[in-house]
Amino acid sequence: MSLSAIEDTRVGATTPSVAAICAAAKQAAGELALLGAGVKDAALHAIADALIARTPEILAANARDLEAGRENEIGDALLDRLRLDEGRIAAIADGARQIAALPDPVGETIDGHRLPNGVDVRRVRVPFGVVAVVYEARPNVTIDAAALCLKSGNAVVLRGSSSALHSNRVLAAIATEAAGAAGVPDGAIAFVGGGGRGELAELATQEGVVDLIFPRGGEGLKAALKAVATVPVIYAASGNCHVYVDASADLDAAEAIAFNAKVQRPSACNAAETLLVHADAAASFLPRALRTLAEAGVELRGDDHTRAIASAHEIAVAEATEQDWETEYLALTLAVRVVGSLDEAIAHVGRYGSGHSEAIVTQDTAAARAFQLRVDAACVYVNASTRFTDGGEFGMGAEIGNSTQKLHARGPIGLRELCTFKYLVEGTGQVRS
Amino acid sequence: MSLSAIEDTRVGATTPSVAAICAAAKQAAGELALLGAGVKDAALHAIADALIARTPEILAANARDLEAGRENEIGDALLDRLRLDEGRIAAIADGARQIAALPDPVGETIDGHRLPNGVDVRRVRVPFGVVAVVYEARPNVTIDAAALCLKSGNAVVLRGSSSALHSNRVLAAIATEAAGAAGVPDGAIAFVGGGGRGELAELATQEGVVDLIFPRGGEGLKAALKAVATVPVIYAASGNCHVYVDASADLDAAEAIAFNAKVQRPSACNAAETLLVHADAAASFLPRALRTLAEAGVELRGDDHTRAIASAHEIAVAEATEQDWETEYLALTLAVRVVGSLDEAIAHVGRYGSGHSEAIVTQDTAAARAFQLRVDAACVYVNASTRFTDGGEFGMGAEIGNSTQKLHARGPIGLRELCTFKYLVEGTGQVRS
Repeated sequence: MSLSAIEDTRVGATTPSVAAICAAAKQAAGELALLGAGVKDAALHAIADALIARTPEILAANARDLEAGRENEIGDALLDRLRLDEGRIAAIADGARQIAALPDPVGETIDGHRLPNGVDVRRVRVPFGVVAVVYEARPNVTIDAAALCLKSGNAVVLRGSSSALHSNRVLAAIATEAAGAAGVPDGAIAFVGGGGRGELAELATQEGVVDLIFPRGGEGLKAALKAVATVPVIYAASGNCHVYVDASADLDAAEAIAFNAKVQRPSACNAAETLLVHADAAASFLPRALRTLAEAGVELRGDDHTRAIASAHEIAVAEATEQDWETEYLALTLAVRVVGSLDEAIAHVGRYGSGHSEAIVTQDTAAARAFQLRVDAACVYVNASTRFTDGGEFGMGAEIGNSTQKLHARGPIGLRELCTFKYLVEGTGQVRS
Repeated sequence: MSLSAIEDTRVGATTPSVAAICAAAKQAAGELALLGAGVKDAALHAIADALIARTPEILAANARDLEAGRENEIGDALLDRLRLDEGRIAAIADGARQIAALPDPVGETIDGHRLPNGVDVRRVRVPFGVVAVVYEARPNVTIDAAALCLKSGNAVVLRGSSSALHSNRVLAAIATEAAGAAGVPDGAIAFVGGGGRGELAELATQEGVVDLIFPRGGEGLKAALKAVATVPVIYAASGNCHVYVDASADLDAAEAIAFNAKVQRPSACNAAETLLVHADAAASFLPRALRTLAEAGVELRGDDHTRAIASAHEIAVAEATEQDWETEYLALTLAVRVVGSLDEAIAHVGRYGSGHSEAIVTQDTAAARAFQLRVDAACVYVNASTRFTDGGEFGMGAEIGNSTQKLHARGPIGLRELCTFKYLVEGTGQVRS
């Protein structure tokens, strides 16, 4: 996109600075934290209604982004991510309505107790305050993130990529207007964009104003943030996930799980990238499993043991290199390795895994327990597909991303994880002795 | 302390690097996470026993630090912080035994549920892995931090200040040896020291090895860490805490709480620094409260309204400046301001508070509720002293510090807060459709 194409959507000298936008968001956050679920849910429905009513406007803005994308030859995959149509807009609106239907996390008592001196102490969930979401390409994130933050009582500062600037700007404006009319304070849904990496740096250093940043994008975005951020960041996950088929595995279950984890949606972070198979199960399991995977179009890369078995059954398996164990393919490619023991499987996962989702298929309770205790990952599965790591699947409703860091929250980041807590302490005049 | 005095306690070329020490800690962390409470508690008692048995050795090392401190003229206050004696060592040992008596946080199920497809999902508390604690002066932190980390299943890398190097080194060695003999893996309690700020930077950039850093020290240490850390840091609190006496306050309770919050231990982060008084209560409350505070040796600094009332009762109150509202005195000094309304009090706390502990004294339920909802702090008190913000007082046992950040944990950081969690997911072959 040309600079002029960006500039012409800005309001010139009257455009507020990132710092001013964030300060207004902080102001709004104080009010938003006190807003009842009734107002918030009405605002979410109003946003959904407005998205449907103003679909032509959204599509016109999206057409400008698509045109610029084609001019800049960003490629079919990115163009598809960028593209909105009536169906996709309806799905975005539906997502906002689903978030309205979820319970309000704000004000939930997490736990509490009475001290020996009669003072009551309870932990109550409260919003963070101002959450910034930095994202790439997909314009639906504009509404998804705004809706999740609104419901969790946080003001949001949205910063999409320049490739989706027109689409994002219209979507954010629609959300802001609809929410405002429903009683949400001004500044609660803010949008910055078009200002390049300097803008990102300004956003990422609003200490004491922005409470938290969620990046939703590739490694380049994460690295850019890591270099400058002084505001806490929850880095969304890369997922180098494994399925380990134990010696005692039910082979039907193992094949179904390995297939599902790899094939059902290979571009997802919870898809499996490496299949580990116990040597005792390799001769019986690998021929059937590799054939099924190959027939589904999966490109296979294996260690010598795997290749020997595959070769005897005329299944093509390329030679795996060290890099294969390290790679999150996000594609129909699978690395396969035969391990001599459960310990070896756990060591492989410990060395190459990204702490996202790891599965064992086994009928042996001791193996299941050892794997769950010793594998250090957000989600550790026994006899189920890694693909369940998802806010929706876990029953938490929508998610803003998946965390592989250990601080605050691991796994899906839903409404509760978008909150912090405070201690509310009530006495009758007690003092410390 | 001279460089040679530091150097002579090191083992020259054989001293392992910070990176090597952290790598060994990570190795140990894998085993430590699986250790039962029986072994951990036995190790804590063994540490306590060894501290008592080896008291002369500790006192000899401490004498070297004290001597260097006197030579370097570090001042009486720092010398007192540095000083150990039999009583203090016994208290440190007792602290380790108290931690042994607390419930093991590792393996606790936080919550869980069954998905519609029959898969069971539960969140289970697990250690972070490797926790680094960076601290200043007080040698007792060596044992306190080691004991808390051991009990919570974390390997710990201790980094004390050079002024306490000999004391810390002996204490760490005693803990390591005693814990090792009780079955704790090598590397689980590690100590680095004497290497200056370069060492701190090396520790703070062990990404993927060190999971978390807790600084326990002043603003200089925090700033040094902020400049270099890539590992997540939980910054211990500064506490600019307020007591607000509402129009409807019971004046006896208000006086007792204000007095306790200021006077009982002014050097604590949960001590009050500013007293806010509603205008309707000022004439009846301030004369008695200010007199009691002044008689206890509290230096008072007030706004014009406060000074006018004080002056009429011949109580000395200096003029408060903007800086007084911002200052965490950590001393027997109190800023006092009369506010026109609850809103004004909340606005003052919002502007100057550090998000630590804030109290309202009131008999009005609406005022109490508004204060609790609208003040953004880790702990918000109604009719109780801010001095209760403490792991021990809250019934959590010992604490490694107090957090005023919102990510992960606010308030006291005890054993549970030294843990993260993972999702354990169990099925019978389920795959995602």
